[in-house]
Amino acid sequence: MDLNENKIYKIIGKVESINSGAHFCNTTVVTKDNEHINIKLDFDQLSDVMMGKIYEFTALAVVKLEDELVLKLKSLKPVEDVLSAQELSELVNHFYVYAPIPMVDIKKGIETFLNKIENEILSKITKQIYQTHEKQFYMHPAATKFHHAYVGGLSYHTLTMLKLIDPFIEVYPYLNRDLLYAATILHDMSKISEISGVDGEYTKEGLLIGHLVMQTLDVDHVAKSLGYENTEEVLMLKHMILSHHGQLHFGSPKKPQTGEALLLWFIDTIDSKFTVLGEVLEDTAEGQFTQMISVLDKMRFYKPKK
Amino acid sequence: MDLNENKIYKIIGKVESINSGAHFCNTTVVTKDNEHINIKLDFDQLSDVMMGKIYEFTALAVVKLEDELVLKLKSLKPVEDVLSAQELSELVNHFYVYAPIPMVDIKKGIETFLNKIENEILSKITKQIYQTHEKQFYMHPAATKFHHAYVGGLSYHTLTMLKLIDPFIEVYPYLNRDLLYAATILHDMSKISEISGVDGEYTKEGLLIGHLVMQTLDVDHVAKSLGYENTEEVLMLKHMILSHHGQLHFGSPKKPQTGEALLLWFIDTIDSKFTVLGEVLEDTAEGQFTQMISVLDKMRFYKPKK
Amino acid sequence: MDLNENKIYKIIGKVESINSGAHFCNTTVVTKDNEHINIKLDFDQLSDVMMGKIYEFTALAVVKLEDELVLKLKSLKPVEDVLSAQELSELVNHFYVYAPIPMVDIKKGIETFLNKIENEILSKITKQIYQTHEKQFYMHPAATKFHHAYVGGLSYHTLTMLKLIDPFIEVYPYLNRDLLYAATILHDMSKISEISGVDGEYTKEGLLIGHLVMQTLDVDHVAKSLGYENTEEVLMLKHMILSHHGQLHFGSPKKPQTGEALLLWFIDTIDSKFTVLGEVLEDTAEGQFTQMISVLDKMRFYKPKK
Amino acid sequence: MDLNENKIYKIIGKVESINSGAHFCNTTVVTKDNEHINIKLDFDQLSDVMMGKIYEFTALAVVKLEDELVLKLKSLKPVEDVLSAQELSELVNHFYVYAPIPMVDIKKGIETFLNKIENEILSKITKQIYQTHEKQFYMHPAATKFHHAYVGGLSYHTLTMLKLIDPFIEVYPYLNRDLLYAATILHDMSKISEISGVDGEYTKEGLLIGHLVMQTLDVDHVAKSLGYENTEEVLMLKHMILSHHGQLHFGSPKKPQTGEALLLWFIDTIDSKFTVLGEVLEDTAEGQFTQMISVLDKMRFYKPKK
Amino acid sequence: MDLNENKIYKIIGKVESINSGAHFCNTTVVTKDNEHINIKLDFDQLSDVMMGKIYEFTALAVVKLEDELVLKLKSLKPVEDVLSAQELSELVNHFYVYAPIPMVDIKKGIETFLNKIENEILSKITKQIYQTHEKQFYMHPAATKFHHAYVGGLSYHTLTMLKLIDPFIEVYPYLNRDLLYAATILHDMSKISEISGVDGEYTKEGLLIGHLVMQTLDVDHVAKSLGYENTEEVLMLKHMILSHHGQLHFGSPKKPQTGEALLLWFIDTIDSKFTVLGEVLEDTAEGQFTQMISVLDKMRFYKPKK
Amino acid sequence: MDLNENKIYKIIGKVESINSGAHFCNTTVVTKDNEHINIKLDFDQLSDVMMGKIYEFTALAVVKLEDELVLKLKSLKPVEDVLSAQELSELVNHFYVYAPIPMVDIKKGIETFLNKIENEILSKITKQIYQTHEKQFYMHPAATKFHHAYVGGLSYHTLTMLKLIDPFIEVYPYLNRDLLYAATILHDMSKISEISGVDGEYTKEGLLIGHLVMQTLDVDHVAKSLGYENTEEVLMLKHMILSHHGQLHFGSPKKPQTGEALLLWFIDTIDSKFTVLGEVLEDTAEGQFTQMISVLDKMRFYKPKK
Repeated sequence: MDLNENKIYKIIGKVESINSGAHFCNTTVVTKDNEHINIKLDFDQLSDVMMGKIYEFTALAVVKLEDELVLKLKSLKPVEDVLSAQELSELVNHFYVYAPIPMVDIKKGIETFLNKIENEILSKITKQIYQTHEKQFYMHPAATKFHHAYVGGLSYHTLTMLKLIDPFIEVYPYLNRDLLYAATILHDMSKISEISGVDGEYTKEGLLIGHLVMQTLDVDHVAKSLGYENTEEVLMLKHMILSHHGQLHFGSPKKPQTGEALLLWFIDTIDSKFTVLGEVLEDTAEGQFTQMISVLDKMRFYKPKK
Repeated sequence: MDLNENKIYKIIGKVESINSGAHFCNTTVVTKDNEHINIKLDFDQLSDVMMGKIYEFTALAVVKLEDELVLKLKSLKPVEDVLSAQELSELVNHFYVYAPIPMVDIKKGIETFLNKIENEILSKITKQIYQTHEKQFYMHPAATKFHHAYVGGLSYHTLTMLKLIDPFIEVYPYLNRDLLYAATILHDMSKISEISGVDGEYTKEGLLIGHLVMQTLDVDHVAKSLGYENTEEVLMLKHMILSHHGQLHFGSPKKPQTGEALLLWFIDTIDSKFTVLGEVLEDTAEGQFTQMISVLDKMRFYKPKK
Repeated sequence: MDLNENKIYKIIGKVESINSGAHFCNTTVVTKDNEHINIKLDFDQLSDVMMGKIYEFTALAVVKLEDELVLKLKSLKPVEDVLSAQELSELVNHFYVYAPIPMVDIKKGIETFLNKIENEILSKITKQIYQTHEKQFYMHPAATKFHHAYVGGLSYHTLTMLKLIDPFIEVYPYLNRDLLYAATILHDMSKISEISGVDGEYTKEGLLIGHLVMQTLDVDHVAKSLGYENTEEVLMLKHMILSHHGQLHFGSPKKPQTGEALLLWFIDTIDSKFTVLGEVLEDTAEGQFTQMISVLDKMRFYKPKK
Repeated sequence: MDLNENKIYKIIGKVESINSGAHFCNTTVVTKDNEHINIKLDFDQLSDVMMGKIYEFTALAVVKLEDELVLKLKSLKPVEDVLSAQELSELVNHFYVYAPIPMVDIKKGIETFLNKIENEILSKITKQIYQTHEKQFYMHPAATKFHHAYVGGLSYHTLTMLKLIDPFIEVYPYLNRDLLYAATILHDMSKISEISGVDGEYTKEGLLIGHLVMQTLDVDHVAKSLGYENTEEVLMLKHMILSHHGQLHFGSPKKPQTGEALLLWFIDTIDSKFTVLGEVLEDTAEGQFTQMISVLDKMRFYKPKK
Repeated sequence: MDLNENKIYKIIGKVESINSGAHFCNTTVVTKDNEHINIKLDFDQLSDVMMGKIYEFTALAVVKLEDELVLKLKSLKPVEDVLSAQELSELVNHFYVYAPIPMVDIKKGIETFLNKIENEILSKITKQIYQTHEKQFYMHPAATKFHHAYVGGLSYHTLTMLKLIDPFIEVYPYLNRDLLYAATILHDMSKISEISGVDGEYTKEGLLIGHLVMQTLDVDHVAKSLGYENTEEVLMLKHMILSHHGQLHFGSPKKPQTGEALLLWFIDTIDSKFTVLGEVLEDTAEGQFTQMISVLDKMRFYKPKK
Repeated sequence: MDLNENKIYKIIGKVESINSGAHFCNTTVVTKDNEHINIKLDFDQLSDVMMGKIYEFTALAVVKLEDELVLKLKSLKPVEDVLSAQELSELVNHFYVYAPIPMVDIKKGIETFLNKIENEILSKITKQIYQTHEKQFYMHPAATKFHHAYVGGLSYHTLTMLKLIDPFIEVYPYLNRDLLYAATILHDMSKISEISGVDGEYTKEGLLIGHLVMQTLDVDHVAKSLGYENTEEVLMLKHMILSHHGQLHFGSPKKPQTGEALLLWFIDTIDSKFTVLGEVLEDTAEGQFTQMISVLDKMRFYKPKK
């Protein structure tokens, strides 16, 4: 990259390394075109930059010792605040292993279901929470390991679950569609704060409270702010979120006690298993067994000959 | 019922009581028109008649002491060997609590799926076993208690499971449709011999071998007779039937180790729970909890207010 | 009770029966002096009166058919809104089996600990929640069965637990006193809404959400309203409340992960066991075994000879 | 080994290595006299040769480039099809770690019990299955690890179990001797197809069906072919084979429900533990503990001082 | 029974009732000849007499009011202190359901094994403990319910276990015969003090210490008194007694860690199951299932058709 | 160290190495002043010296080849038999990681409680056992790993537990103080023989009998020697010691069945957890999680920010 003194450059890149010592402080980022660029930081800018994340960096070219030009960071923004959905969707495939479907398609799919929620209370609450977390939602893995552990995994998993709802309601028509749409969209949303999206570490709040209760607190808070705190819908929604791990020993403080809560658990479990199984079978020869699969009770599965 | 001496009567009725002593032996049957008719039996006819079953009785009117006319059994046939599917479908609703869908519709539904099996090996084996048990299949409950414990429950449960297969294959296209159709139709077929259809008692073979292994033996035998014993299809089918209780402690000697086997377990479990839940919720007021439901972990479920 | 026409009477009594039919609607209450008094109700007053609760009834003496005078309800208030703490403390002993210590003494004890909380955040949050529920807190049992199942049990149990904290801190001085005081006072507060105080039934919210999460929601809400939502203290407090059942299979969505959370679980467990044991041993002869005690693993305990 | 051109050689040897590439294909075998001999193969002979197995190779000496003589395989037979029992018994000790008793003695022992079965149905079925697998039965280990994991282990384990039957019948005379002999001889026979005898890997059928059900299928098939399928004896035999792991979580689809089935489980368990214990104690000094023993609950055992 | 004044009568009888009030105190006993005899007691003799036990009563015929003669107790002895083994053996069959073998034969059997112990330490300890409890040993049931719950059950169970030892040693010759004889004879001896022999109630010591530790204390005490406390034999014996319930959750503080300890557990388990099974099958028709059997995992067992 | 020929030296040191071969036999010890001294041994003195222990060595300076002076061992005594409590207390800190409180203070603390036992039976038994083991008691770790695994850990753990008793009795006054003091002092005393104090290996008796039963045997023996074997106190004491692991699967043959036994389990559990937690938290930064802690269910704990 050729630099001109005192010119401002806008660079979109993924943080590759952060380097600091007594007398230096900089980051190296890689761009879409695979250029590696070093940007100098002030020490108090250090904590704004996280390994593995993509930012738009605004930097000034300044002269260093011996006439060398270097870039000096002015400001930075998370890339999801800068690009359109379409642009972002294309960008992530350059930098990450992304979910099997492009980000824009996952987004379109999820918002279709979101807009099909007819019940006003459920619609308003779900939309308000969705909009707050919308950007991070499509950049987050569903887990640190086990299943959907790639960027976008959280939203991809959510979309697949949504696709299973209608067939079930056709067979068991007593189930409430709006509750299932709303709870499915929200059920894992707090994983955004439970698991640090970049390095996949659990956060302090994630370990001490957990995404089930964190999301219930979130729903409760939004419901109160909208004046819906005493509605049947909110109670049902909170129960579904709390109970969607299905069993006390999986961390749900209550077991599912409504049909919708029970189904949410089932489609969550099913998708976490069958998506992994599909991915592993793809890498397995016909007539052979897979390696042990953690999320499938540590069993090896057989891929039949066609 | 007015009787004429020496006339032969054909009576279709359900056995209400069987009475025998040192000097008497007879059965009382109830007809579709709610008439209660007593038919005398020879002692060696006693074991042909089972409480609660429907037969076509052929009987002769003969004179008893003091000029009274009585009916004397000539022969009898299970009613399913005498009536057309349509007639039988109508008849069972007179005598039993039947599944929520008429027998003819269940039958039509199941046979539609049966005919959609394209793989020749799976198609031939499934059809041969189906045809052997066809009549009893639609008269049998799925269980002695817990779920689908009404006449026709076995076939109704099978049909609902079949309806869930296509949606899953749409989301997880690596799954084999023919295997799923075949194994679903066959998975509980041996309950016909495991549980005595009328009084719901387990048979000796049911207790000592169980329907999972009984059905595997059946598939193995038919496969051998058709020359298919060493095919991949037969191995997959036997594995699915053996493993469809999902866990060793539920009586499967092997856990599911193919995607199809895993899905069979899931849709079997799901239907056994959601069908019961739907039935219980129908009898529960909105805003109330149900009674404890055995098949749902002995939990009470809540019916939300609309 | 002698009545004068058109006079207003103020009666404090416990509801003994509620009677209503097409043409009548009344309640019979019993007073401290064991007088049984019938009060006529309008149909729309029916839902204000709960079996077993104590109210101050304001009623007018009116003439019924044939010159008989009857009392007609004007209005009513829960007795805890009318009497002083001292008066209430004396009254409950007339009407209920109360905890082994008088209500005023339990109250004085608990407020002593409440006032010893030095940390401002913990002090403000705990006091605000305490004051909201103060009245019902001293009238509530701790459970529907098992332990402390008498009126006042909730506050009595809380006080005993508070008394165990200081000795533990003396031996393990790294533990935080303020967190332990605050969390102990709050840990079971939501039982007031989880269990209906009079008939001891679980409420809908109690069954679907449970007092652990209900209380966490409450702390979260109050903390937000006071601007403390992101403090270490609030996170610690929420974690302690969520985890105080100690194990996932006892309904805590997270296990204790701080020393204070672990101790809260221990002293809660210990008090629930040793208080019951003390009560049962009192009714057991020396040299004999007690009956099976539910809360003590269904064991029988031995009372040694002195 | 000196070779003469165009002469045919018969060599009995154990396959040491199989080597193939674009332009070569051969195997090296080792003989009883510890001679290592290379034999050239056609590519289509490759799959007939298994590592570690002993064959009689018939090979022709032919001229290769530069006047070198090499052996060219004509045909081969498993050695058990060529040698007498006595010869085979001697041979295996040269090539394998064999069970503690010579093969001929194990064989004589087992056939003595086989011939003591008086019940005609049990005798015919057991003999027919035994004869089908006779050769491999004495060459097979009982397991891939844990217990009796040496060549001949399967038959040695079977013989020891047979020796325990009579003493039990003496103490509990209601037990059926013929059922116990027959089921003991057959109970693990299908391990021959469950575990590949040479490398100790589980086969596909072994993993998906398992030796309990495989052996039940075998008994069922033979019983049908002999016209015995509806006899009490066959039902008892199938139940014993299915249930001989004793518990659902050990892979038996049914728990033992006859005295004979229960005893079969006990003597199978006992022999698997006490034989291993004896072998490990032999390598342990008096007054010392053994290493952890897998098959004994991972416990260390103590060898007392004499 | 005709009485002569002032004559002394010796009566052997089983206590049928004990009656006492302000002004009366007597017992009614039944004799071998089915005579019911009332004997007057002093109040301080009351505690010497236990319901259901057999004594030799020495009584004096004295005159009561109105010339009636009554018997007045002089003294009494447990019948086992008065009769020879042969006489006692015959007597118990008149009064109790006794074990399936006569008492004298059980005694002869057990003493044969006792005398076969060659190791001096084990022989002396076992004999000393045996002689202390000899009399009660043959009068005691093995349990209050479940298995061997008849008079003599304890010794009968011990004898059957002894019979199984030699066959096992023949197959697994590394096991120590003397240890197995000694530990088998002693393993349940303390049930005499754990369970009150007459009414089958657990004693205080039985509940708080248990027969495993009680017997270990007994062996330890006798070993110390004989100067054997530091021998290998005594350590092995104590370990076997402590561990003979096999698993911690069955009340053994240590699991078996010697071959002899492991076998003791197995033969104890086996005999407790197979003896009950034999008894229950005797009362079951061929081709039928038994009732649920507690000691057999609450399973129903099948009795095959011959 | 300067040696003079034929002079006797008294050296207190900890054994650092023991060296022996065909022609040499000696030990190197390190003194308080960090001097390393080699002392020659006769071969028959070899087994008197244990690695890691501290002794007073009495040695004679003798001439070796070439005029070199060496020390030749005359005799040795465990240092605890030579020094006063005060001297020993100071010495152990030179050689070992000792408990957080000086030995003399632990000793003073424990003896204070020992002297507060008023009941004569409990006092005499506890004192007699204490005095027998007094010296080793203060030199022993409480465990080979997990908790209190440093020298003096056993007595330190005992003292902390004693400190918790009085507060509990204040809250639950029905508990017996003397029983709690006595059982707490004795409960782990047999760890001295269960675990070899120096290398932390389990002894043969420890593995086969365990400290719970070993200590019960000890109490039983001392009680018998004092004529107290049939007292209520001794039964209570034995029950408390046996049951102090609380659950069968933790190795207690009986669960706690008295209030005192239950409390002993609780304070033992609590101290084993909270002491470790305190130690680990000391090494953890605020705002961080600890490593996994074995004794705390393998959980990581959080250290809050102040």
